[in-house]
Amino acid sequence: MTKILKPKWMVTLAPGSADVLTDHALVIDGERIADVLPRAEAEAKYPQAESVELGSHVLIPGLINGHTHSAMSLLRGVADDLPLMDWLNHHIWPLEKKWVTEDWTYQGSLLSAAEALRGGVTYLNDMYFFPTAMARAAVDAGIRAGVSINVIDFPTGYAANAQDYIAKGLAAYEQFKGEKLLDWTSAPHAPYTVSDETFVALRELAEKHDLQMHCHIHETQFEVDESVKQHGMRPLERLNKLGLLNEQMMAVHMVHLNEDEIAMLARQKVHLVHNPNSNLKLASGICPVTALETAGVNTILGTDGAASNNRQDMFGEIRAAALLAKGSTQNPTTVSARTALEMATIRAAKAMGRGDDLGSLEAGKLADVVAVSLDAVECRPVYNALAQLVYVAGREHVSDVWVGGRQVLKGRELTTIDVGSLLERTEAIVHRMQTER
Amino acid sequence: MTKILKPKWMVTLAPGSADVLTDHALVIDGERIADVLPRAEAEAKYPQAESVELGSHVLIPGLINGHTHSAMSLLRGVADDLPLMDWLNHHIWPLEKKWVTEDWTYQGSLLSAAEALRGGVTYLNDMYFFPTAMARAAVDAGIRAGVSINVIDFPTGYAANAQDYIAKGLAAYEQFKGEKLLDWTSAPHAPYTVSDETFVALRELAEKHDLQMHCHIHETQFEVDESVKQHGMRPLERLNKLGLLNEQMMAVHMVHLNEDEIAMLARQKVHLVHNPNSNLKLASGICPVTALETAGVNTILGTDGAASNNRQDMFGEIRAAALLAKGSTQNPTTVSARTALEMATIRAAKAMGRGDDLGSLEAGKLADVVAVSLDAVECRPVYNALAQLVYVAGREHVSDVWVGGRQVLKGRELTTIDVGSLLERTEAIVHRMQTER
Repeated sequence: MTKILKPKWMVTLAPGSADVLTDHALVIDGERIADVLPRAEAEAKYPQAESVELGSHVLIPGLINGHTHSAMSLLRGVADDLPLMDWLNHHIWPLEKKWVTEDWTYQGSLLSAAEALRGGVTYLNDMYFFPTAMARAAVDAGIRAGVSINVIDFPTGYAANAQDYIAKGLAAYEQFKGEKLLDWTSAPHAPYTVSDETFVALRELAEKHDLQMHCHIHETQFEVDESVKQHGMRPLERLNKLGLLNEQMMAVHMVHLNEDEIAMLARQKVHLVHNPNSNLKLASGICPVTALETAGVNTILGTDGAASNNRQDMFGEIRAAALLAKGSTQNPTTVSARTALEMATIRAAKAMGRGDDLGSLEAGKLADVVAVSLDAVECRPVYNALAQLVYVAGREHVSDVWVGGRQVLKGRELTTIDVGSLLERTEAIVHRMQTER
Repeated sequence: MTKILKPKWMVTLAPGSADVLTDHALVIDGERIADVLPRAEAEAKYPQAESVELGSHVLIPGLINGHTHSAMSLLRGVADDLPLMDWLNHHIWPLEKKWVTEDWTYQGSLLSAAEALRGGVTYLNDMYFFPTAMARAAVDAGIRAGVSINVIDFPTGYAANAQDYIAKGLAAYEQFKGEKLLDWTSAPHAPYTVSDETFVALRELAEKHDLQMHCHIHETQFEVDESVKQHGMRPLERLNKLGLLNEQMMAVHMVHLNEDEIAMLARQKVHLVHNPNSNLKLASGICPVTALETAGVNTILGTDGAASNNRQDMFGEIRAAALLAKGSTQNPTTVSARTALEMATIRAAKAMGRGDDLGSLEAGKLADVVAVSLDAVECRPVYNALAQLVYVAGREHVSDVWVGGRQVLKGRELTTIDVGSLLERTEAIVHRMQTER
């Protein structure tokens, strides 16, 4: 059935488009956007289509969360305000070691998928263990995901060694081949947890299967200093020597960068995933986004997992990216509202290798569409719907979401997930973790 | 009628209290809190009281917005991403000059009051022209306000000169004397807009009427540099020589501070109002909150006006204060969740000179109480209700608000304001501003 969405405003983010369209409509036919055109023309051209009135809404492309660990929503707020190594060694890692299973990962991933869709996120670029669990949760929720063939060079409850991680990841990849909602990434965890040999194996895997790569790099000064001690070079230099820094790489965090590194990232077309709130909360520092923008690096946004940034809220990351860049450089014109929104949509689609299908509202692209109501007191008045989205609106103003033309959120209710039973299962898992720890 | 509020969790912020109480109740009798005690005891002690079940909620003291320009909600998003002087000279000041009247100020203040109450804010410390308009709006909305006797040493549509500002402010103060919801401040706008003579007059006014003072200080590096050129000293030194730096002073912004100034603020018990998101958005910089905490300065939080921080959202400021302090110092233990929440409650009450009546949930204090539901998917699971408030919950999770025992928000609906007609009037004003400008 063809649908005509009739919003008050539309922010398409198509290249060269006006910031905000009014009196326009978006036509969905099957899983794709058939047309973006003036409303009157749409009504004449598609007289049989179902009409969806969105009289106080702005329509935007679905948001893409460029980096998260979805299952970790089960550890949301389990420990805060602690030094990093204390937090990891005495809280997060012991809990993961004891509890993380296929089912735990599925439940946490489904909880994150529910949170994501309610917040206008239609794509989760995930990194975690048990990729079949994330894959199942995404398919069940009707959300897109980048699922990781994740490797960390030490044993966990998931796998014994690098070969085992890769074998399990590849098996999951084969199992879900052809599933339209899923992309797959080759995902070495980080330079301090992965050997040269494993990095090369994962690069070759990415080349063979034409996958993007997904890796934490230069998150903390400590990581950089340790690499210099151990390898005689900074992590980026090491990865560059191993042939990993190219347009297949999504480099996550990248808080600590010098000028030469920024120039190299731009030259080699590495994608950078900025996680402003996680970097603040874990006290990693502030990523030099303005310098990256000037150099022309494709910078996108992520939340990181709910253990380190307790809100999986892309509206919050978009706003934080715009504000933090301005405040930290004392330049109010850097990272405009449009730039910040692009970082969570069209730029992110490019980073995922999905620029032709996702990230903007254009005829022919997949219909990942979000309606945000600007009707509430706290969103009024509206002078500029794009600035209002970034500086005013919150994820709670998201009313309706379509993924590949399928409506997954309707008037703030999820159509794909039974929230009551999801929360019951969540509470049961948490109760067990708290009583048996 | 006595009421017993029965929340799942309570964060009282009383001195020395546990972070989170469970199985407790809060008893409201008239305008004050009669008791905070175990739920079973409350039921036995107050058998006739009306019972309010808040089974998925955390109860907190009403939030205090330590600095705003309420009426400027009518200019929310009118201009963004611009250099400060361009923004002021070509957008904000011309609009204010042309449009600001008593009625405009009332409508904007009422819009901000509605936004505040829906976001758990029970006290607006305001600075603007036409104080009678703010006073009327606060009384009509049933919110507390610090209303300003505001002076800027140049003519506006409100007043002709310093004497005129003071006379009008004092007349408003006399007119509303005895109104329980209102406090009044003596409010020189800023060192770069107020003469020495006027500063002294406002200090004397504060002393005579026992008022707190409210002034923008050290917001930008430009302000500090200009003062050195013009007065041969930094603004803080100038204000100190004029006798203004003491516990009556709420110094707003204070982004640019040296070590000696921080020590002096602590020694002289000046209150500091930190506006993290406004300072980022206008690219003023980052206030050194961690150093202020170490020195013992009483730091509180504000949103600033909606023209410069388009969200009047104290949940956002609390979270930003905690995160920004950690990220900018690379110390994850600074500004804990409890400290950040105190900055918007008990510490703010002290700064307003209302520490005996406001800012914590304690028997004898005024019943300014906020219920926040942690029931939604994005707030689950809950390991620690205090951390969840700061790092997870948003203002949209506020369900019910009482100010002085009167319920002003009930299931997210305002009981004091007709929102439909408020928004109609808002649209009419904005339409006129846009068509006649």
